[in-house]
Amino acid sequence: MADPAPLRRLAIVGLGLIGSSLARAARHYGMAESIVAIDRDPAVLDRVRALGLADEVTGDLAGVAESDLVILCVPVGAVGAVAEAMAAHLTPGAIVSDVGSVKVAVVQALSPHLAPGIHFVPAHPVAGTEYSGPDAGFSTLFSGRWCILTPLPESDPEPVERVQRFWEGIGAIVETMTPEHHDLVLAITSHVPHLIAYNIVGTAADLEEVTQSEVIKFSAGGFRDFTRIAASDPTMWRDVFLANKDAVLEMLGRFNEDLSALARAIRWGDGDALHALFTRTRAIRRGIVAMGQETAEPDFGRGRSGSKPEAP
Amino acid sequence: MADPAPLRRLAIVGLGLIGSSLARAARHYGMAESIVAIDRDPAVLDRVRALGLADEVTGDLAGVAESDLVILCVPVGAVGAVAEAMAAHLTPGAIVSDVGSVKVAVVQALSPHLAPGIHFVPAHPVAGTEYSGPDAGFSTLFSGRWCILTPLPESDPEPVERVQRFWEGIGAIVETMTPEHHDLVLAITSHVPHLIAYNIVGTAADLEEVTQSEVIKFSAGGFRDFTRIAASDPTMWRDVFLANKDAVLEMLGRFNEDLSALARAIRWGDGDALHALFTRTRAIRRGIVAMGQETAEPDFGRGRSGSKPEAP
Repeated sequence: MADPAPLRRLAIVGLGLIGSSLARAARHYGMAESIVAIDRDPAVLDRVRALGLADEVTGDLAGVAESDLVILCVPVGAVGAVAEAMAAHLTPGAIVSDVGSVKVAVVQALSPHLAPGIHFVPAHPVAGTEYSGPDAGFSTLFSGRWCILTPLPESDPEPVERVQRFWEGIGAIVETMTPEHHDLVLAITSHVPHLIAYNIVGTAADLEEVTQSEVIKFSAGGFRDFTRIAASDPTMWRDVFLANKDAVLEMLGRFNEDLSALARAIRWGDGDALHALFTRTRAIRRGIVAMGQETAEPDFGRGRSGSKPEAP
Repeated sequence: MADPAPLRRLAIVGLGLIGSSLARAARHYGMAESIVAIDRDPAVLDRVRALGLADEVTGDLAGVAESDLVILCVPVGAVGAVAEAMAAHLTPGAIVSDVGSVKVAVVQALSPHLAPGIHFVPAHPVAGTEYSGPDAGFSTLFSGRWCILTPLPESDPEPVERVQRFWEGIGAIVETMTPEHHDLVLAITSHVPHLIAYNIVGTAADLEEVTQSEVIKFSAGGFRDFTRIAASDPTMWRDVFLANKDAVLEMLGRFNEDLSALARAIRWGDGDALHALFTRTRAIRRGIVAMGQETAEPDFGRGRSGSKPEAP
């Protein structure tokens, strides 16, 4: 007989890209005897049922009862309200976790609603695509990607370990840090990159001298890469920027200082400064490829048949 | 018997990613009876010989003699010197073209060196990868991509048509505009995107609070996309920014204004303004995918086996 699943009952609240991927992964890797999917949107519930992603599908937060692990996969701005509404239904000893891209604000929003005897282990899987909703998920989304846990000083070690084993069980690599440090790291590796991607797509769309059709046609020169990130979920990202305001503005300030120096180098024709930076940045990508966090294929392997190097 | 190739002798000067892809494509699509590859770097010539990319391989610009089409595939900053050195070897009636990402500066640098009877048709294929050198090229690089021609007011129509047919023959779609307009369009669709990608990678590398190892590990949150562009050829890009200074600084000014407004919205908690922009930018990507300039696969189809949506 196979080993019993590590979890008896796993509740996933919010069945978007991340939540639906978690449901698929938990089932695929046999991490829970039973999965309950909870979402407030009836259209999402219909899709979750049609896709057969969970054993129980409900719009009622009372569905978290009897779960040993409850993972909130809702936008960061909704975490507090969801926690408040579900708190009374949690079973003592349950672990509550989340997948939010911001951690300090989530800890502040969630903690006040959790009774003693409920364990809270904040988590953030650094993975995703530009698509949203239950149809966009897939079971290997977290495979080989990092999941950051930000346990609180008062956290019991045992629930933290259970959450770690859950993420490792679905293929992720786990790292632990404080919520504050998480928010700083993600500001530069994720939040500011999204902000400048959204921004340049907006700037391009608003030009009078260059038509939108020209921007679209000639986007293969670099612009199109930014549009992928700028197609990410608007509600999720609005909440991220509002919730991680201080770290985002701090990192954006650094970015702006550096960009001013680059603009100055261009204006004054300082080719050596440009060349030095452009050489230095190549090394970072090599590190990311070497760490298995990125493909080495040219152009991301995009349009594979057309863009592979080949013999002449 | 097959039709004769459209060109008798095609000379390619500079056998990097673009030049070597042109050599491969010209042969693959039967565009020239004979191809001569010219490069000043002996190591490049060795690779071109080993790869068998051309019928003649030489370090001597006299190799352009008797060619009906000569395409300069050198960094924009080198175009003037190469033109000067090869001018005496050109055969009357020859067409000189290029592939530079900047057009006004190239026209200014090249034109003075061309004798009457030599036709000049500036061109820019909007295609590439983050890799450089003769080994990085492939014959389908230009397939389905746009190539912009910027003929001069005094240009004969016939050579322009020959260059157009050449690019169409290797799979590109051709559009014509003025050099000035080209430089403005590419500033926003290519040059500024590269500048901000180089910039954010530099900013991230310089942080004290966040280690380089953390930047690399957690890059899947968005940052890694920028590192691809920031791994592009340093010399080529240094020259682009110096040669298209005015348009780049103008577009960068727009980008900065918009970014300041976004930062302000974050600081003052204006979630509606953020959400409105983040929704608008999704439409641009849909346009790019619909135009065949981008894959619709999640995450660019990156690491295909792992990131395809699938049934649960």
